[in-house]
Amino acid sequence: MTTQTAQTTSSVEDEVLALIDAVRAAHAARDAQAILACYDSSAVRYTLAPPLQQDEGTDYGDAAGLQKWLATFDGPVQLEHRDLRVTASVDLALVHALTRMTATPAGAPKSFSFWYRCTVALSRIDGEWRIVHQHDSTPFHMDGSFRAAVDLQPPA
Amino acid sequence: MTTQTAQTTSSVEDEVLALIDAVRAAHAARDAQAILACYDSSAVRYTLAPPLQQDEGTDYGDAAGLQKWLATFDGPVQLEHRDLRVTASVDLALVHALTRMTATPAGAPKSFSFWYRCTVALSRIDGEWRIVHQHDSTPFHMDGSFRAAVDLQPPA
Repeated sequence: MTTQTAQTTSSVEDEVLALIDAVRAAHAARDAQAILACYDSSAVRYTLAPPLQQDEGTDYGDAAGLQKWLATFDGPVQLEHRDLRVTASVDLALVHALTRMTATPAGAPKSFSFWYRCTVALSRIDGEWRIVHQHDSTPFHMDGSFRAAVDLQPPA
Repeated sequence: MTTQTAQTTSSVEDEVLALIDAVRAAHAARDAQAILACYDSSAVRYTLAPPLQQDEGTDYGDAAGLQKWLATFDGPVQLEHRDLRVTASVDLALVHALTRMTATPAGAPKSFSFWYRCTVALSRIDGEWRIVHQHDSTPFHMDGSFRAAVDLQPPA
């Protein structure tokens, strides 16, 4: 659902998807500054890793933390989105998707890959779309093991 | 950030928060139909439990699945939100919060409690706000154990 404004629906969606693609490209380039350039400075991020939310000074909360994480890989951190849905209003947009990350730990003989859920909210601030909220996660198994479910596949 | 429309900012936020409170009250009442009445039928839900997303026929995807889960508790399933932020546009709104669930498994001597991250997107459809997307999760520990981090506390 996209509200018609002065812009056409497709151009709003194109702008939002361009920012999602910039995040993807910045991961592939392992460029922490380019990742954070897609976010508003007030953005609240819930990531795959603790703590509950990332802020300045947490493990993945700033450029230094992100760069340290990106340096643990050889080559690109690849993100692939599936079942992506965009919902846009005048100056707020929502994107959610199932996302597969593929990467090779530094020195490892081969890559790993897993699926997680990705929710991104974007605001148009001074005419430019910026990410104001991100939520990435896997569910966890409800068998008493409390294991993160990194072994799930999207529905066929 | 809330866009000024014919409605005042506070009334849009009030409407959105009323729906969030209806979800809370429906959990306290352990009423699956009342929970799902807050959602649009096309809503995509990413829950604490597998699979990656809940649909009709998944464990928590419909009223039957939700009711079965609610029946595993004695007394209310209590939800408490902290650091809740509302961002609203004309017909799309975003809410995110750190949420504590407290509940007592059926027959258990005492309750358990844990914090997770909660993101909710709402659309105004035919004049009524409905939840179109929800994402609940804990992160997982990055120590190689892949343990869901159900032991975290919000920042002080």
